[in-house]
Amino acid sequence: MNGHLAVVGLGPGDASCLTPEASAALADADALYGYAAYLDRVPARAGQARHASDNREERARAAAALKHASRGARVAVVSGGDPGVFAMAAAVCEEIEAGPESFRAIDIAIIPGITAMLAVAARIGAPLGHDFCALSLSDNLKPWELIERRLDAAASAGFVIALYNPVSRARPWQFGAAIERLRRHLPPSTPVVFGRAVTRPSEQISVVTIEHADTVEADMATLVIVGSRQTRVIARPGKLPLVYTPRAAAEVSA
Amino acid sequence: MNGHLAVVGLGPGDASCLTPEASAALADADALYGYAAYLDRVPARAGQARHASDNREERARAAAALKHASRGARVAVVSGGDPGVFAMAAAVCEEIEAGPESFRAIDIAIIPGITAMLAVAARIGAPLGHDFCALSLSDNLKPWELIERRLDAAASAGFVIALYNPVSRARPWQFGAAIERLRRHLPPSTPVVFGRAVTRPSEQISVVTIEHADTVEADMATLVIVGSRQTRVIARPGKLPLVYTPRAAAEVSA
Repeated sequence: MNGHLAVVGLGPGDASCLTPEASAALADADALYGYAAYLDRVPARAGQARHASDNREERARAAAALKHASRGARVAVVSGGDPGVFAMAAAVCEEIEAGPESFRAIDIAIIPGITAMLAVAARIGAPLGHDFCALSLSDNLKPWELIERRLDAAASAGFVIALYNPVSRARPWQFGAAIERLRRHLPPSTPVVFGRAVTRPSEQISVVTIEHADTVEADMATLVIVGSRQTRVIARPGKLPLVYTPRAAAEVSA
Repeated sequence: MNGHLAVVGLGPGDASCLTPEASAALADADALYGYAAYLDRVPARAGQARHASDNREERARAAAALKHASRGARVAVVSGGDPGVFAMAAAVCEEIEAGPESFRAIDIAIIPGITAMLAVAARIGAPLGHDFCALSLSDNLKPWELIERRLDAAASAGFVIALYNPVSRARPWQFGAAIERLRRHLPPSTPVVFGRAVTRPSEQISVVTIEHADTVEADMATLVIVGSRQTRVIARPGKLPLVYTPRAAAEVSA
């Protein structure tokens, strides 16, 4: 009676991007825990309990799910995208480390999913085709100075940068400040990709230069990819352009 | 008769990690192009042509597939993991930019997949739970000095680092040199995760400290995740440990 907890990645949204492994883990659970908007994506199944919670309550949700599983149940925590990328898997691990010994006996299965940067990149070409990094712009859990330091390090060393959580109602200025910071390192023509709600009915994709990137509206459903000096744009008549970063990099001074 | 080219991510290997979108794109193609070992993972279908090529021939493969598609066919190029991460999508974009105008009229669909770092991270907890970067250690397409510079930048700014292509027969010393370089920035106890052939029958996962990381065997099927100063290990009786990076980071001096 050790219990079983699956942390399941739902991918970017559309069911065609959900892996068979994730579908099976969802169908197999006695109870589902998750942010309400993510739970709504999971088909209902008779006899399966659902515990919806607010977006911000990751630790409380993780603790409740672990407690439930430790009583011998099969529980699934749902996560947008990939659970390991700015999502529920780290919150679950935090609670296991802080919680009672019984949490360490639970069988834990993390089921990967298509994280937002992969979904957005795929829609527009291959902007992540060379070395890149993923950075959350939320300063709820780290000081803004650390974010600036990481933006400097990544851009000056020639990494393409995927920005998660660019904007929220409580964080209105951070995205503009980040773009301004990146302009110190990158030429005005550097391509920037905005992908919102990719694979969902309200999907929006746009490509601008970093010169104008702070004028584009972004929100919590937006993933932003800032190119490197090597990132290129291929114009195509009647189609979206292709944005890609070549596999080869010649210069040491990126 | 513009033709259609899908670049399809097969994920880490097992069919349970292949998205329905990817399965549909493979079934829908008149012809498949790919590295022979990846093509072998795709179920045979009568009437579908297969063009296998060697691992290194990415550009020639991309050019052949584009030429075929431009004659009006539905063609799929298969890629391990996610096509946008050190894989075929960038090679296809390079050929579109360098090729004839007709290549720009082809309908291009990049189908994302579970890339190796997500699959390995999921097996061991949430090592990518905070800011991270993905770096290829192959110096076939960039100078070693640039790789060193990026290792320095990423480790000193507190990014977790996923290393793709750590070792090949032609590149025997680079992985050891990278670990040695990273030791300048990270304490000896920093966790390092090795994931080989994850989800396949020969899967191997191990966790060591960076002090001993250069003694672990790695090859082209291995993905290595080097933790940051924040990355933690939770021992569990009778189970693999959990390795995770907490969502919060307090220190500016990473």
